[in-house]
Amino acid sequence: MSTGSTSTARRGPGAKSAERRRSIIDAAHAVFAERGYNAGSFQAVADRVGMSQTGLLHYFPAKSDLLLAVLQRRDEVSTAAVDPTAGFAESVLLKARANERIPGVIQLYAVLSGESTTEGHPARAYFTTRFDRLRTGTAAELRALQADGLLGGSVDVAIAAASLAALWDGLQLQWLLAPGEVDVVACLRDYLDGLFARP
Amino acid sequence: MSTGSTSTARRGPGAKSAERRRSIIDAAHAVFAERGYNAGSFQAVADRVGMSQTGLLHYFPAKSDLLLAVLQRRDEVSTAAVDPTAGFAESVLLKARANERIPGVIQLYAVLSGESTTEGHPARAYFTTRFDRLRTGTAAELRALQADGLLGGSVDVAIAAASLAALWDGLQLQWLLAPGEVDVVACLRDYLDGLFARP
Repeated sequence: MSTGSTSTARRGPGAKSAERRRSIIDAAHAVFAERGYNAGSFQAVADRVGMSQTGLLHYFPAKSDLLLAVLQRRDEVSTAAVDPTAGFAESVLLKARANERIPGVIQLYAVLSGESTTEGHPARAYFTTRFDRLRTGTAAELRALQADGLLGGSVDVAIAAASLAALWDGLQLQWLLAPGEVDVVACLRDYLDGLFARP
Repeated sequence: MSTGSTSTARRGPGAKSAERRRSIIDAAHAVFAERGYNAGSFQAVADRVGMSQTGLLHYFPAKSDLLLAVLQRRDEVSTAAVDPTAGFAESVLLKARANERIPGVIQLYAVLSGESTTEGHPARAYFTTRFDRLRTGTAAELRALQADGLLGGSVDVAIAAASLAALWDGLQLQWLLAPGEVDVVACLRDYLDGLFARP
């Protein structure tokens, strides 16, 4: 594998390695978005980024490392897709709409999240942490809206935070199996409308 | 494998085979409920039902056949656990409570449902059909409640049916990863209370 020594000498091996790692994750994100979990392979990712499989393994020794990096990238892409001035409900719906354009990555998420519930699975820590943060972060956002009088005082923010994340995941699962039958955005909007209509 | 010829002669091979099949599924349900997806094995099921692995393979040639049969048995067990006079919301909560006692089977459900979203997966037809039926069946139940004036006319029953199934699945996933943090029944009750409070 060529390591681009001129660039390495100028900026240090750390920067070069991080950049390479980032381009691999971008390529993997694109490969899985296009082809889905089954057809997305190490070889396809290596081809796209112009390196050998051996070179790829240097950066991601286990396939699970690369898959988790793709999910983390999805979180970044998803957040970047949202207008920072959008309100809480609007942000959720914008992210859900963005996910509809990357079914292969959502499929990857569905497979790994389900498998992560088994003991010792390499994705277990990622999903445990992800859901912890989601519940805590969403509850804090909802609590702030309550303090501003924008969300009714009867809403239990901890229950709403867990429920919103759960609903979203479950809807995406049904949508992957029957894209023409399940409208993720319409269902999320219905839940949020109901939540914000509570006293 | 002994086929119990006396009984076979009396009732025909079909009845004997169906009974044997049923006892294997019961054993597998118990094994997965106790041990979970990783530790539940063909050997453990064969031991429990007192037959060889080869004998077991005669009834269930692929592990996925047996796993899907366990999920179907779960649906039966879950339905049987509910008082037939219970109302809609109460039935949901009783089934959710029953699921808390079989985390290993719920783990099996989480793994297979996620994997079923990939092309060609042996569980794909099961889950596609399951969700179709759940959405249609629940929507019909909710429509009947609307007709009887027990559910507000503003509720979109198709959206509510998909959302309830989705919420439940997503909550169970979070609960498997953090049993002490997520109260599936409390979250489902909160959703149903909100739904039945709508005008």
